[in-house]
Amino acid sequence: MLDTKTYEKDYEILKDKLIEKGIDIKKIEGKLKNFKVETPSWGYQDSGTRFAVFKQKGSARNIKEKLQDAAMVHKLTGICPTVALHIPWDMTDNWDELLNYALSLGIRPGAINPNLFQDDDYKLGSLCHPDKKVREKAINHILECIEIAKKLGSRDISLWLADGTNHPGQDDFRKRKQRLEEGLKEVYSRLESNMRLLIEYKFFEPAFYHTDIPDWGTAFNLCIKLGERAMVLIDLGHHPLGTNIEQIVANLLDEGKLGGFHFNNKKYADDDLTTGSINPYELFLIFNELISAEEDGLKVDIAYMIDESINLKPKIEGMIQSVDNIFRIYAKALIVDRKSLRKYQEEKDIVMAENILLSAFETDVNPMIYKVREEMGVPLDPLKAFRESGYMEKIIKERS
Amino acid sequence: MLDTKTYEKDYEILKDKLIEKGIDIKKIEGKLKNFKVETPSWGYQDSGTRFAVFKQKGSARNIKEKLQDAAMVHKLTGICPTVALHIPWDMTDNWDELLNYALSLGIRPGAINPNLFQDDDYKLGSLCHPDKKVREKAINHILECIEIAKKLGSRDISLWLADGTNHPGQDDFRKRKQRLEEGLKEVYSRLESNMRLLIEYKFFEPAFYHTDIPDWGTAFNLCIKLGERAMVLIDLGHHPLGTNIEQIVANLLDEGKLGGFHFNNKKYADDDLTTGSINPYELFLIFNELISAEEDGLKVDIAYMIDESINLKPKIEGMIQSVDNIFRIYAKALIVDRKSLRKYQEEKDIVMAENILLSAFETDVNPMIYKVREEMGVPLDPLKAFRESGYMEKIIKERS
Amino acid sequence: MLDTKTYEKDYEILKDKLIEKGIDIKKIEGKLKNFKVETPSWGYQDSGTRFAVFKQKGSARNIKEKLQDAAMVHKLTGICPTVALHIPWDMTDNWDELLNYALSLGIRPGAINPNLFQDDDYKLGSLCHPDKKVREKAINHILECIEIAKKLGSRDISLWLADGTNHPGQDDFRKRKQRLEEGLKEVYSRLESNMRLLIEYKFFEPAFYHTDIPDWGTAFNLCIKLGERAMVLIDLGHHPLGTNIEQIVANLLDEGKLGGFHFNNKKYADDDLTTGSINPYELFLIFNELISAEEDGLKVDIAYMIDESINLKPKIEGMIQSVDNIFRIYAKALIVDRKSLRKYQEEKDIVMAENILLSAFETDVNPMIYKVREEMGVPLDPLKAFRESGYMEKIIKERS
Amino acid sequence: MLDTKTYEKDYEILKDKLIEKGIDIKKIEGKLKNFKVETPSWGYQDSGTRFAVFKQKGSARNIKEKLQDAAMVHKLTGICPTVALHIPWDMTDNWDELLNYALSLGIRPGAINPNLFQDDDYKLGSLCHPDKKVREKAINHILECIEIAKKLGSRDISLWLADGTNHPGQDDFRKRKQRLEEGLKEVYSRLESNMRLLIEYKFFEPAFYHTDIPDWGTAFNLCIKLGERAMVLIDLGHHPLGTNIEQIVANLLDEGKLGGFHFNNKKYADDDLTTGSINPYELFLIFNELISAEEDGLKVDIAYMIDESINLKPKIEGMIQSVDNIFRIYAKALIVDRKSLRKYQEEKDIVMAENILLSAFETDVNPMIYKVREEMGVPLDPLKAFRESGYMEKIIKERS
Repeated sequence: MLDTKTYEKDYEILKDKLIEKGIDIKKIEGKLKNFKVETPSWGYQDSGTRFAVFKQKGSARNIKEKLQDAAMVHKLTGICPTVALHIPWDMTDNWDELLNYALSLGIRPGAINPNLFQDDDYKLGSLCHPDKKVREKAINHILECIEIAKKLGSRDISLWLADGTNHPGQDDFRKRKQRLEEGLKEVYSRLESNMRLLIEYKFFEPAFYHTDIPDWGTAFNLCIKLGERAMVLIDLGHHPLGTNIEQIVANLLDEGKLGGFHFNNKKYADDDLTTGSINPYELFLIFNELISAEEDGLKVDIAYMIDESINLKPKIEGMIQSVDNIFRIYAKALIVDRKSLRKYQEEKDIVMAENILLSAFETDVNPMIYKVREEMGVPLDPLKAFRESGYMEKIIKERS
Repeated sequence: MLDTKTYEKDYEILKDKLIEKGIDIKKIEGKLKNFKVETPSWGYQDSGTRFAVFKQKGSARNIKEKLQDAAMVHKLTGICPTVALHIPWDMTDNWDELLNYALSLGIRPGAINPNLFQDDDYKLGSLCHPDKKVREKAINHILECIEIAKKLGSRDISLWLADGTNHPGQDDFRKRKQRLEEGLKEVYSRLESNMRLLIEYKFFEPAFYHTDIPDWGTAFNLCIKLGERAMVLIDLGHHPLGTNIEQIVANLLDEGKLGGFHFNNKKYADDDLTTGSINPYELFLIFNELISAEEDGLKVDIAYMIDESINLKPKIEGMIQSVDNIFRIYAKALIVDRKSLRKYQEEKDIVMAENILLSAFETDVNPMIYKVREEMGVPLDPLKAFRESGYMEKIIKERS
Repeated sequence: MLDTKTYEKDYEILKDKLIEKGIDIKKIEGKLKNFKVETPSWGYQDSGTRFAVFKQKGSARNIKEKLQDAAMVHKLTGICPTVALHIPWDMTDNWDELLNYALSLGIRPGAINPNLFQDDDYKLGSLCHPDKKVREKAINHILECIEIAKKLGSRDISLWLADGTNHPGQDDFRKRKQRLEEGLKEVYSRLESNMRLLIEYKFFEPAFYHTDIPDWGTAFNLCIKLGERAMVLIDLGHHPLGTNIEQIVANLLDEGKLGGFHFNNKKYADDDLTTGSINPYELFLIFNELISAEEDGLKVDIAYMIDESINLKPKIEGMIQSVDNIFRIYAKALIVDRKSLRKYQEEKDIVMAENILLSAFETDVNPMIYKVREEMGVPLDPLKAFRESGYMEKIIKERS
Repeated sequence: MLDTKTYEKDYEILKDKLIEKGIDIKKIEGKLKNFKVETPSWGYQDSGTRFAVFKQKGSARNIKEKLQDAAMVHKLTGICPTVALHIPWDMTDNWDELLNYALSLGIRPGAINPNLFQDDDYKLGSLCHPDKKVREKAINHILECIEIAKKLGSRDISLWLADGTNHPGQDDFRKRKQRLEEGLKEVYSRLESNMRLLIEYKFFEPAFYHTDIPDWGTAFNLCIKLGERAMVLIDLGHHPLGTNIEQIVANLLDEGKLGGFHFNNKKYADDDLTTGSINPYELFLIFNELISAEEDGLKVDIAYMIDESINLKPKIEGMIQSVDNIFRIYAKALIVDRKSLRKYQEEKDIVMAENILLSAFETDVNPMIYKVREEMGVPLDPLKAFRESGYMEKIIKERS
């Protein structure tokens, strides 16, 4: 509830308090300035549930319009310089032109996401499909994506498979597993030496009896077999209820196998609610693990990405709100008094250890965020700036 | 694993065993012959997930073709004489003609299902929508469905609302509840005296933060307020995991408020898996409650309906398989030795009480089912008969 | 991360901001001073899981010691003037003396909680037990609790039944329901005219196949049948995962049937984690509904109670931490800019409506809490005060 | 519902049908005769929930009495020749004598289960505990169990850790993981060359915020690091709801890392319901994977064990019922027409593939089971035989 107008005074107070706890606010501000989160091209196009797709006025109709919207989000937030592409939705016959167009807007393509679920051929799976022909088609599509990534200078291939079955007996679990391993090996061997393959898992949907990569353990095991440039991609919405996701994060960091994050939130199922809108504390605890690992000297090289298809909110506004939530909660995790936390953990003082986390989470970090934004030359309140920009009115007109 | 060829011998053995337990097999066969389950018109058209809709060759393109398919299912099973209609998907400008067409196929329309989720106006709800105009539109649509029901001689209006919100703060829970009660009152007052309003609940989807009718308690409370012709509709797929659905059945039967059933199955979420394919024993326990209530003299007047949109299996075959599972499991519940069950419950002999249920569930009731089918003049193995009928080849040709 | 030493300055800043939003901070402070949350006597005694009970040094061994601990919590927080009693754990043969002892410590007994699960007779249930003799014993125990409540001036009987079954077929659902209704009617008829019966529900445990009162719908239906002094008691830990509890709150408030709350938190199951420790935002959304109903003029007369058996933290500290979390989150819900929220909801501006909630949740309300505590004459930091009080050392010595 | 008196006729009919499908009933009967499932010593002693432990008359009070009960179960079923021991509950100072006593009863000790959760020291964990002293104590206890195993000729150490935390911040995930790996390495290095370490995972309980080995992925990764004699132990009750356990089975079999099974069942949580009592079809699908792997030539060397603490049923009867359910469902999985299943899978005939499974599940295999039992010289109906044996009356008298 801080006001952008008066934040300087608030900032001084916050700074003093952090200093008192031995926390280097300048270092934290540096980290905030370096933080990046990728937005997805598909977050700017119309979307829906299996029951209905509601059209939004002004929603992006093609990759150029998606890039425009993503560039606008970056312009207002300063931390979204890349856009994840989805192939073939974002297909073009001139990648150079597209790259230049993106660069001209101040952004660039990020992870390349193959689509292995939309084509009629993929009804019974892609890399796990019983038919070799379909598996080869899937492999070729990923190889095509690798080629696109090369052209665009993208490092990461984000691989989500919709593969699974709906009915007991439909297919053989072990055979599907073997097909999957075989296909991934071929794909992995074709990566450039600086590229990574990020393997995503999902507990269920769109397959409802079994999913071929249902959990981190399966994704992790695949990555181990493939090699060091295969890393696990965690999507926050893809776990059974009650799962301790921050523990999975810590676990994968310790194994050196966490490569990417998809941000969103869920209450029961579906993974497309605004990040931080259902349980912001859980997100804080996740960031806490990431920062803790970094401070302990582990290699933390994670592609942060938003994966949300916002159905009811205006898409660009919804994206800005998600970015805002992520940034604020990241900032809260940065000011955790980790030295005291460790001390209390060692003393087995559970009450105080927990209070250290709660205290950081309860802190209003907005003054620091305003300060950082001012120094980055972006609006203090990106949502307000967006509403005042006239951008929405403009695209509604242009895209009708 | 019984064979249709040799079932007579098997039937005699089964009959003897049932008689020994004091179970009147003729009475049970009578019940089997009177059992009816409605199939849904939307179960014969193309469907999918939010990720893809895969077209099936020969799938019904309009209400007449859906009626043809439903009639075929009835012809082969003998227990599916009605078809649930979905408005406006099954809209026609000549209901008399449609009714006659159905009758000519040997079936008739069953429950009328208003669609209150597809139109752009319903993005934020229908009967709970913040705007009076949208609520009125929704009410008018239901009234239109009541008119259709009158014309077709349908008794039940099946009401499923997709209403809910995706974001905390999006709307006011209590206001939505009041709007809902107001709208339903208007609708209820317009029912014919022999008609019923079946109110369905669903834990989540397509709304993901809150659903306006999320559980049986909410639906039940609405029904109590409306009057005696408002009854709860249970859809087997619409509960949180771990819910004891057979208890809800018993509870609503005891309150005289169970009006309808939607059959399907689920493993984690989604409600469209083949009935009896994930946990057939649960379905058995549900039927056990229904039969038990009936035998105790409670009024049990329940519209049994299948609600499945089969995506991967051929639709008609999948429907036949569901009907088959339902029929077989219903037969198993009919042969529960209820007298012994009661005795063991009274003696608090838990092991034997449970064994009574298990024993009925374990019994191979196929000989009795074959016998009943033979006497009903339908094929002993409806799926086999369907494959041999040439129907599929015919519709693939006709509907391409 | 505010400091108690400097809170005055922070308070002024916060006050100004609230005023700017048209929020009357004085009124809010008044509400905070009137807020009360009851602590449970069983929260001060040793507890555990089915795997182990770990003894804590100094934990209360009898009702007098529990009252001492509860009085200490009240002394330090100012908002816990009553203690829930559990019969027979807190049984005494001299209730006058006990009442006087409590009053001498500055607290008094709150809700009376019958124990209907511990005695060997209750193995198969209490009010739902197949044997009349056991049901009568259970009824008599509740009547005894009503007598105790009369003697102590307690208004509420908190009824939690462990009744349920572990095995399909073990008992008859409908018969158990009827026994339950019959027993409750007898109990209800014996309440004094100013007393209330609070009926709690729980999804599962300690029964694992079915629970006789598994959800709010069942508890609500029982209350409706009993009369207006029967009210539902919500325990935050007693729902299936993914349940929207704030909606149940709003629903019961709208029906005038919400009588009590048990605070705690859970991640997957078990209901004994520190309130606000897993999803503080959910607790905020719940308080938001309560305050919203109150401001809309609904009768909100709810017994707020903590129900936690803290196993790993020191019990009194854990209780103080829970009280602190509840108070802080309640304060956050009080400063929601409800006028703007309504406006945005009416405008269907989902993004801003959600931001109103988030903004209140993000606000550091500690300065206001410190102010209130100072004016109430309690320590600004109750946990710190507890640690400095020497109380723990004293009881460890006395109770060894 | 087959009768033991007339089974010969039923057997002939079943045999003919199996032969017609090309299924070698003699081979299946051979497998049934070789099937073994271990019962747990703790399944014969009093148990309960955290709310109450209800004493049963005649329940075993010490390891000798547990062995007597286990021997009785084996005598009646013929397939339970080993008993899992739990240390220190089953501690003795003369293992030779105990071994001889067991052998004299016709059984022998099976897996050795260390108890790392009961002692006060383990309040914050065992192998993951922050204090080296406690970790060493835990390691020493496991080494002690290895010594016992050597003395008794037991091959498997079954390791279940209750380690976890209840509160965010309580301890450091990565440090706990490292302590765990270190401790297990030491333990593993001390195994005899013919011994195995079975590592169990559990989603939650008794820790409620995080569990150190929460899923198969964590257990699997530990096993990979340890070596080939470390294998994963699946307990059927230890997964989030909706988990496809048969897929985990197939996955671990394919990796050669499935070492043991704990049978039981659950509806929402807790893992102590009678095996096969909630979802028998799931158990069938699990056995289907095991048999399928075996027939494909994979090495399947799995210790089948029941892990149930039966609270409401008489313990020995409950155990017999579980053994009976397991045996019957195993038999059903054995008669799956795997050749046809494969064919239909290859043809992508989902409906028929599913029907192959359903058809085996629906088959009444009791005649075959009776035949096998007769040839094994055990009673056809072990429960009935138990009730007629007078054993219960005897132990109630002796153990009072």
